[in-house]
Amino acid sequence: MQARIHVTLKNGVLDPQGKAIHHALAGLGFAGVEDVRQGKYLELELADQDRAAAEQQLRQMCEQLLANTVIESYAIELDGEAVA
Amino acid sequence: MQARIHVTLKNGVLDPQGKAIHHALAGLGFAGVEDVRQGKYLELELADQDRAAAEQQLRQMCEQLLANTVIESYAIELDGEAVA
Repeated sequence: MQARIHVTLKNGVLDPQGKAIHHALAGLGFAGVEDVRQGKYLELELADQDRAAAEQQLRQMCEQLLANTVIESYAIELDGEAVA
Repeated sequence: MQARIHVTLKNGVLDPQGKAIHHALAGLGFAGVEDVRQGKYLELELADQDRAAAEQQLRQMCEQLLANTVIESYAIELDGEAVA
């Protein structure tokens, strides 16, 4: 079972890495870029198991390790489908 | 126009960050994780323009700055649709 996780900074949280990329793109002559936000992307390969159990486990992984939920939010996809 | 870019290590390229996350998850008691790969995720807000021009510009950004194409591949989505 394949899971994809996106961890992104919450709106309103300053994103210096995104700002640096934005600046670098402008320096390379790419006009028309209005904003850049950088996040993390993870692909997890899970042993076959119950989908509900996998969802719960992935949510726990995000809460405990993968995302800093004070400033970051996360989105989970399991086999290509978004998990609420 | 919103673009989403995923930059991931090519298959076969060692991913020490993914390995570290895998190890940490195991240490926290998450069994059943077989593999973890970490990538980068970028959200770009582009000024309104021609879609074809935006696609071409995004591809150039990836080639020139966002991805190290020797070891990384990239995938571009524009307004939620994958760009070939």
